[in-house]
Amino acid sequence: LPTKLPNTGTTIFTVMSALAAEHGAVNLGQGFPDFGADPALLQAVTDAMAAGHNQYPPMTGVPALRQAIAAKLNTLYGSAYDADRDVTITAGGTQGLITALHSCVGAGDEVIIIEPAYDSYDPAIRLAGAVPVGVPMTMDYRLDWTAVRAAITPRTRVLVLNTPHNPSGRIATADDLRELERIAEQHDLFVVSDEVYEHMVFDGATHESVARYPGLRERSFLVSSFGKTFHVTGWKVGFVAAPPALSAAFRRLHQYTVFTVHTPTQHALAAYLANPAPWQGLSDFYQAKRDAFRAALAATPLRLLPCEGTYFQTVDYSSVSNKTELDFARWLTTEIGVAAIPLSVFYQQPQERRHVRFCFAKRDETLALAAQRLARLQ
Amino acid sequence: LPTKLPNTGTTIFTVMSALAAEHGAVNLGQGFPDFGADPALLQAVTDAMAAGHNQYPPMTGVPALRQAIAAKLNTLYGSAYDADRDVTITAGGTQGLITALHSCVGAGDEVIIIEPAYDSYDPAIRLAGAVPVGVPMTMDYRLDWTAVRAAITPRTRVLVLNTPHNPSGRIATADDLRELERIAEQHDLFVVSDEVYEHMVFDGATHESVARYPGLRERSFLVSSFGKTFHVTGWKVGFVAAPPALSAAFRRLHQYTVFTVHTPTQHALAAYLANPAPWQGLSDFYQAKRDAFRAALAATPLRLLPCEGTYFQTVDYSSVSNKTELDFARWLTTEIGVAAIPLSVFYQQPQERRHVRFCFAKRDETLALAAQRLARLQ
Ligand SMILES: CSCCC(=O)C(=O)O
Ligand SMILES: CSCCC(=O)C(=O)O
Repeated sequence: LPTKLPNTGTTIFTVMSALAAEHGAVNLGQGFPDFGADPALLQAVTDAMAAGHNQYPPMTGVPALRQAIAAKLNTLYGSAYDADRDVTITAGGTQGLITALHSCVGAGDEVIIIEPAYDSYDPAIRLAGAVPVGVPMTMDYRLDWTAVRAAITPRTRVLVLNTPHNPSGRIATADDLRELERIAEQHDLFVVSDEVYEHMVFDGATHESVARYPGLRERSFLVSSFGKTFHVTGWKVGFVAAPPALSAAFRRLHQYTVFTVHTPTQHALAAYLANPAPWQGLSDFYQAKRDAFRAALAATPLRLLPCEGTYFQTVDYSSVSNKTELDFARWLTTEIGVAAIPLSVFYQQPQERRHVRFCFAKRDETLALAAQRLARLQ
Repeated sequence: LPTKLPNTGTTIFTVMSALAAEHGAVNLGQGFPDFGADPALLQAVTDAMAAGHNQYPPMTGVPALRQAIAAKLNTLYGSAYDADRDVTITAGGTQGLITALHSCVGAGDEVIIIEPAYDSYDPAIRLAGAVPVGVPMTMDYRLDWTAVRAAITPRTRVLVLNTPHNPSGRIATADDLRELERIAEQHDLFVVSDEVYEHMVFDGATHESVARYPGLRERSFLVSSFGKTFHVTGWKVGFVAAPPALSAAFRRLHQYTVFTVHTPTQHALAAYLANPAPWQGLSDFYQAKRDAFRAALAATPLRLLPCEGTYFQTVDYSSVSNKTELDFARWLTTEIGVAAIPLSVFYQQPQERRHVRFCFAKRDETLALAAQRLARLQ
């Protein structure tokens, strides 16, 4: 078959999880928790099924869930999203992203992605017939607005932001968002903002959402998901919040892409969101894991890069090996017994910085076992 | 926003369900049951959640579910689908359809759709930059192979089949499938086969799947879903079965479109499929509803068209009204209190045959109430 995605293989997450399973490695590759979700959340799904919420909800999603999301965003960010008009429930973050992109770009449009870039952005853009333009972060994995400005052409239509940033663990600052606001206004760009790690920011920092900045909010698709926040990555329910014209364009595609998503889970999430404690406590929960994991790795020759948010810790292994990142990640999985994700796969032109990413959304024992195995590195 | 879907409004199902709710009409429009699903199936989801199946499954779907699907298809149709290689779990039938189409068509390709055509086919094809070519069924809503042959050009690449057929309630015969097999081989076409009503065929007829015909199977994406079969239209879990090259192309897009779908529900469906009774009994279950509904409508001036499969009954209202189908469906909803779907919306060039569709996947009381209201027609 002639493919619209030449040179596209299987996503790295599938590849590394399969390799980890095959070799009995501790899987710190693909980002998902190895611990259970809140029993109250599971019970809420059971309750919703028992209450008969098993048929099509409205195409845009269960109203109570859209209301809970709009209320939360508006409280956190001072926005004024309308639940009926501006919020649409999606089949996870990935579907929100691709549908948002396809809502605002056409053939030949250029879309700026910040590299390292999550691996679905590039194919999602190419599937719309548009051109992904990779703009690297600084060597320190900070947003590089000079480089972004230099990459803008008359055909640039969208910038994809991701904060907290996967895989680097960096977060965008208020200055970053203000600069993006200026750039987006000046060049009339849309912003697709992937904020799925919104509730994992550490050391007292604040998540800077596009929703907080009026000039950005009015031209942004805010994409998020409940999988990461509530430890249920397999549930695949997310949302897109966007102003009326953007939401209307989004829904026009959404209705023929998936139409809607698991009704009982939407009801359950709506009920569960009534209690803010679970997401309000998430940063502390993961900061403790980050700190324990970093402490355990201190004894290894791996150099720990800063981790300001997300549940990913990037390390520099250059003192250990000269292998490429992909080869090192494979070797680490098969020989040391710990799976990781090479950052090189998140670039259009593979970069080789000897950096791999570990996921620390794991039980303490799992992290300890991984650290013990990694202590064999020298 | 410049849209890729000009002239596309909101799907008729959303429009009519909203109108029905607003006017307290009996909603026989959008196709979904108003009765509960099997408690054993709901329990299986609860069990899967409790067993910790809440994280990402493999991108292609939970292996046990893919195995159950392959085994069922291979037993029913004498096919030899391989669970690992040839079956992919989707976020419902709609996502399976659009991703299958996007896997095999490119800009400028022509795709034949049989009209009346389910309303997502046309936009799904246009979103791929391809050209939907509507070929009408006969006046009696049978497949018209002469018309199909006449519509084929050198740029025709795919034919979308739908059997049992929504909205007409017709089913394709073995002769139809053999003729399609000849045409597809002769013109080297792919087939996207929407078989979501596969387990609702009446009066002792057999569902003719593309999987039963080797020459078709090897060039077909078989699309189905569990929502209709198990009375859970809101669960949005379906599958695509296709030979290796087609499945590989499908998965290349699928991984960046939704990646995967509600893990616990996949486990639950795998367990539930171990008992064939629920789907084996479905035709009898719906045939009884069809017969009761038709009997109740006999007293009205509506003319009942044949219903061989699906849970839809199409009627001719020409002796009642000269309104267009859309106007009549709206009037029926607001004035008579019964929502229906006009068939005219399922054509590129609206046809006016004075036909509307009722969904009879409803409790006996609901059907009786609808019939009582429809008895006011004269
Ligand atoms: C969709 S699988 C990838 C999970 C994830 O977000 C990550 O590991 O970065
Ligand atoms: C996706 S809503 C439409 C349900 C349906 O299949 C129908 O009513 O035809």
